[in-house]
Amino acid sequence: MKKTLLLTAMLSTPLFAAEGMWMPQQLPEIAPQLKAAGLELDPANLTKLTEFPMGAIVSLGGCSASFVSPQGLVVSNHHCVYGSIQYNSTAEKNLIKEGFLAKTFEEELPAAPGSRIYVTVEVSNVTDKVIDSKTAKLNGKKRVDAMEANEKALVAECEKDEGHRCNVYSFYGGQEFHLIKQMEIRDVRLVHAPADGVGKFGGDTDNWMWPRHTGDYGFYRAYVGKDGKPADFSKDNVPYQPKHILKLAKEGVKEGDFVMIAGYPGRTNRHRLPSEIEYTFNYSYPAFVKASGEALEIIDRETKERKDAAIKYASTIASINNYYKNRQGMIDSYKNSDMLARKQALLADLKKWVNADKARKKQFAKAIDQTEKLIAERDAIARKEFLLGYASPRMLRSAQQLYRLANEKTKDDMARKSGFQERDVPRIKQGLESITRRYDQQVDMALTAHFMSQYLAMPAKDRDAAFDKAFGLKDNMSETDLLVLLKPIYEGSKLEDLDTRLGWMDKDVAAFKASDDQFIKLAVALYDRDMKKEQRDEEMGGKIQQAYAEYMDALKTYLNSKGQAVYPDANSTLRITYGKVIGREAGLPDGTAWTAFTTLRGITAKHTGEGEFDAPDAQIAAIKAKQYDKYYEAFVDSVPVNFLATLDITGGNSGSATLNSKAELVGLAFDGTLDSIISDWDFDVAKTRSIQVDLRYMLWQMKVVDKADNLLKEMNAL
Amino acid sequence: MKKTLLLTAMLSTPLFAAEGMWMPQQLPEIAPQLKAAGLELDPANLTKLTEFPMGAIVSLGGCSASFVSPQGLVVSNHHCVYGSIQYNSTAEKNLIKEGFLAKTFEEELPAAPGSRIYVTVEVSNVTDKVIDSKTAKLNGKKRVDAMEANEKALVAECEKDEGHRCNVYSFYGGQEFHLIKQMEIRDVRLVHAPADGVGKFGGDTDNWMWPRHTGDYGFYRAYVGKDGKPADFSKDNVPYQPKHILKLAKEGVKEGDFVMIAGYPGRTNRHRLPSEIEYTFNYSYPAFVKASGEALEIIDRETKERKDAAIKYASTIASINNYYKNRQGMIDSYKNSDMLARKQALLADLKKWVNADKARKKQFAKAIDQTEKLIAERDAIARKEFLLGYASPRMLRSAQQLYRLANEKTKDDMARKSGFQERDVPRIKQGLESITRRYDQQVDMALTAHFMSQYLAMPAKDRDAAFDKAFGLKDNMSETDLLVLLKPIYEGSKLEDLDTRLGWMDKDVAAFKASDDQFIKLAVALYDRDMKKEQRDEEMGGKIQQAYAEYMDALKTYLNSKGQAVYPDANSTLRITYGKVIGREAGLPDGTAWTAFTTLRGITAKHTGEGEFDAPDAQIAAIKAKQYDKYYEAFVDSVPVNFLATLDITGGNSGSATLNSKAELVGLAFDGTLDSIISDWDFDVAKTRSIQVDLRYMLWQMKVVDKADNLLKEMNAL
Repeated sequence: MKKTLLLTAMLSTPLFAAEGMWMPQQLPEIAPQLKAAGLELDPANLTKLTEFPMGAIVSLGGCSASFVSPQGLVVSNHHCVYGSIQYNSTAEKNLIKEGFLAKTFEEELPAAPGSRIYVTVEVSNVTDKVIDSKTAKLNGKKRVDAMEANEKALVAECEKDEGHRCNVYSFYGGQEFHLIKQMEIRDVRLVHAPADGVGKFGGDTDNWMWPRHTGDYGFYRAYVGKDGKPADFSKDNVPYQPKHILKLAKEGVKEGDFVMIAGYPGRTNRHRLPSEIEYTFNYSYPAFVKASGEALEIIDRETKERKDAAIKYASTIASINNYYKNRQGMIDSYKNSDMLARKQALLADLKKWVNADKARKKQFAKAIDQTEKLIAERDAIARKEFLLGYASPRMLRSAQQLYRLANEKTKDDMARKSGFQERDVPRIKQGLESITRRYDQQVDMALTAHFMSQYLAMPAKDRDAAFDKAFGLKDNMSETDLLVLLKPIYEGSKLEDLDTRLGWMDKDVAAFKASDDQFIKLAVALYDRDMKKEQRDEEMGGKIQQAYAEYMDALKTYLNSKGQAVYPDANSTLRITYGKVIGREAGLPDGTAWTAFTTLRGITAKHTGEGEFDAPDAQIAAIKAKQYDKYYEAFVDSVPVNFLATLDITGGNSGSATLNSKAELVGLAFDGTLDSIISDWDFDVAKTRSIQVDLRYMLWQMKVVDKADNLLKEMNAL
Repeated sequence: MKKTLLLTAMLSTPLFAAEGMWMPQQLPEIAPQLKAAGLELDPANLTKLTEFPMGAIVSLGGCSASFVSPQGLVVSNHHCVYGSIQYNSTAEKNLIKEGFLAKTFEEELPAAPGSRIYVTVEVSNVTDKVIDSKTAKLNGKKRVDAMEANEKALVAECEKDEGHRCNVYSFYGGQEFHLIKQMEIRDVRLVHAPADGVGKFGGDTDNWMWPRHTGDYGFYRAYVGKDGKPADFSKDNVPYQPKHILKLAKEGVKEGDFVMIAGYPGRTNRHRLPSEIEYTFNYSYPAFVKASGEALEIIDRETKERKDAAIKYASTIASINNYYKNRQGMIDSYKNSDMLARKQALLADLKKWVNADKARKKQFAKAIDQTEKLIAERDAIARKEFLLGYASPRMLRSAQQLYRLANEKTKDDMARKSGFQERDVPRIKQGLESITRRYDQQVDMALTAHFMSQYLAMPAKDRDAAFDKAFGLKDNMSETDLLVLLKPIYEGSKLEDLDTRLGWMDKDVAAFKASDDQFIKLAVALYDRDMKKEQRDEEMGGKIQQAYAEYMDALKTYLNSKGQAVYPDANSTLRITYGKVIGREAGLPDGTAWTAFTTLRGITAKHTGEGEFDAPDAQIAAIKAKQYDKYYEAFVDSVPVNFLATLDITGGNSGSATLNSKAELVGLAFDGTLDSIISDWDFDVAKTRSIQVDLRYMLWQMKVVDKADNLLKEMNAL
């Protein structure tokens, strides 16, 4: 009896305290820890997606957010609504710099095209439908095709409910599949964002850093048709009335407090094989960092004298820089860690456990070996093809997408490749449109020539013969040779023109074949190769899915046997994570620790009045005058600005409501510290810290500096 | 009975825990706290200057140090022996960069000229002799003259003991006087200093900063004649054998440990009047910071194209920068503090207490008022004359000193002004010599013209008529006018020539009067003014001493009545302070705390391989290879490098041995953090932290990197 009890308790212990991005339905599994950590709600409540609090949690697609008023007010990060601030900014009215506040519903501005608010309404385990008895017997590409057909059918059925978007997501590396149904709100409006000097205070310099003082918050409002259903933008639309909203906590958090987050983490790799770790950290990330550094130099060189081009590449540069810092940070952390050794030990232990039992050996041993073998094959291919992506002109990639669309369109919608169905067409169009404001021919050609010459330095046997032939590439061509070769190709294409590009969406295969547009011609020439590659990848994908699912099954069973609950790696679906507000004993640099909170003092200390550290005058004045209002906390002798927590989050969690033990809003997650990024692979509770903007700082800024009383009133926070 | 006990206990409480630079003889007064804090020795032992451990504590004049071997080995800071490293460096053998290690006594190098090791052998309270019954009745200048005569007599009597230097020091703002007798060791040799990249790692950037990673240590050896008495340098001299030496602690300190320091703190201002604080922080320090900033700009401008001049001003620039950072740091701290309000409250309380009792009122009330009035007068004069110092050519100041010497020499030695007696002549000479390597006419003239023009912008009534007349200054002269005026003066003087300058030390008054050297002529012309000013200052000084002593008596009596022991402000005499090893809850920047220790990790993290962060290759290699030897500490997973403590120190304490509860050596104090500097005025235990180099780091570097086994063996530390 005692033994059983002990086992139950142990079953509830995750790999490490605070680690875990739990699927809502898993929470009963870890209910004892949640209670012990301080959760005051019944964990079972958190499994009900249409009840409080989960009913208030939404996705912006790439960011997380929450409803905070009965009138559909949505709070997320400044950087999540940034595109909409940018979209509404003009030279005369620079909303980025000045910030924006709609004092009435009428003053609200349409969010950037494509902005969506997704409300997850249903999650169902469809593993048995995706891999039905027939599919289970299939192998390789046939298996993939069957799975895709099943998935498409599930999605189509689900999307019959108008105003909803459905997707099948793979969990545990293809061991489980869940159909996720989301209401898709299409009329999204910008309500409020603080000035850039608040919302982006610290800029790239402070990105991934602590101490942090960023007011990374912004507000949208969801609008629907008068019937309450999602609708395209219309003046006649009305604010969406969510069934549940988050209450703002009356009391903020302090060090040691329980906090949790419900949001949409993008991608983690916690369950990878040692060989995948080696491939990533010894080859793939370093190669990315190298290529990114080179790309940044080239963009800088090619835009130096051309302001228009520089503006077009500003967001690309920001993005490359962000990932550059991210990947380099991970590489640094990896070098100082014993992650690989631990993963190797875990795999060895798993194999030992599998081989210790005849039945287990029979069930798992072969799949584990097979998984390792297949992953090694896949990584070898990826390595060979790494430079190919960098060496392909941007417009060629569009041409390939367009030609594929034309080919898929010859089929029934349900028979088309996923991503090229009618439901995907608006997104394809949006993607094609967005190129215009971030493309410059001279820059793109310079990048292509640079990486093509690196690609050509590879032995011919490792290169892509079709690619070489299509472009007329030869061994040892120099960058200059390549520029000479590429110039007529770039100039022989009209795809740079938006209307021309969009025009190709409606043309048939014959039109492509007859075209003398250089990139279209290349796309046609490369089509067979592309299809072959896809077939090769799908063949391998089918095998990997089959083996990997078995491997994950073995790993889960093994860990469960040791009393460890296992959560699936992040995959952009709704997850819950909990932890506590806490600083760090060993900060950076050496000789410091990190306190859990920063304060208004740090803003004035960092403020230089220019560049990334340019807080608004009114804010600085309010801080200097100690106008703390009711947001003062004695424990910091100021207003708390940002805070650290052990929450297990990653990209995609941005904008997530940070909730206290009663599921009241206390802040918004917006970042992690640089040496936490490695947590995408390996969570270390001593180091990993998420960074939140404190609700008290948001409210202080809104009330004392930005006078956003209308919103405070709406949120019942005056 | 209970009441009495309580009072006794309270009497032992200093103003704040950890605050206090105690005279050794005061320690029994605070014995209970010392015991409570963790001291394992009998506090009474610390009062005996010729016993252990005080017998091992020495002064280098401006720095503190200690004997650490029976062969007279002395350890202090790298920056305290820096002049001697510099003195022995050549282009071929750059000891600054490479460091220096004498493997045998024979390899030891003479320290820089003027280097001394002072061993305090006796401290006697001579208040009754300085202010004897006759002097007590005198007033103003007459009082000062009588006190000076008494002091000179005491010093002369004391210095009859050959090889000793004696001085009378004023304590509690002139309320007490102590005669301090020190053995003066004149043959000092450089034994060991690590490379600049260790001893000065972090340079000016890290100066006053935490986290810190500086190996600020170096070794001298004291030599004496064969008779054991101080002697000038001679090959025949032998190592001095101190009666007591410090043992090196076998176990280093950890957070929370008791530590203490015996050393020679230079100057603090803890007992100043509110008006003195206002004058200092609202006028004097800001004026200094402004003038320093201007001086730095001028020196930079005038030396830009002239490398020789730049080298000459390098140490001046370093010194100005150091004080600039120091004073600005204090101003910043002051602005963020309620120091003035607290000092005002204390004075108000004192007055209330004085006025509450008839006898007390009679005894103290007038003196307190008088002190405030006199200080206000003195500060008004200082304010008027602030620019005069900056507006005086360097060589004029030397000429004034030389002419004064000639005048004093007409008197009996005992009748001469203090500072111009025979015993002072070697120091005067050394001062005159040292100018050569830090003087450039063009720079000095530019500085003089700049500040003269500022001085001339003052109303004529606030200016010095004699100064104006001597130079021929007129209202509204521009900097260019002044350069024209100064050029013939500078060129009409030969004082820049060292031999000429020194030659004037032996000339009589008549020779000065007959000279046509421009600066000598100016000095002669200004002599009457100088004397009048001195008389004015001494008249006021006498009054202030009399009143201030009464005020301090009142303050001490008042604080004692509240159970607070009172230590005198620092005045370069031997003091003991205790505290504990501890980080800081609120570090800088906002969002960090400070841990008590830094580690070797921080060195590799800061190391750039150039400039101020250029650790030796061998050190970096040893760190990377984790060659920690026996100096590894698990609590930092590395070797501790520097540590923070609440020790109450200031300039002059540099090089002090940091001792554990058994008075064993655990490190060397070498700095304080920037927001601790204000502790010269106001000690705040939450903020004030001294920075020590950890003995473990010293020994690790000496053993693992520098292979200084001979010294480790000598210190019994192998």
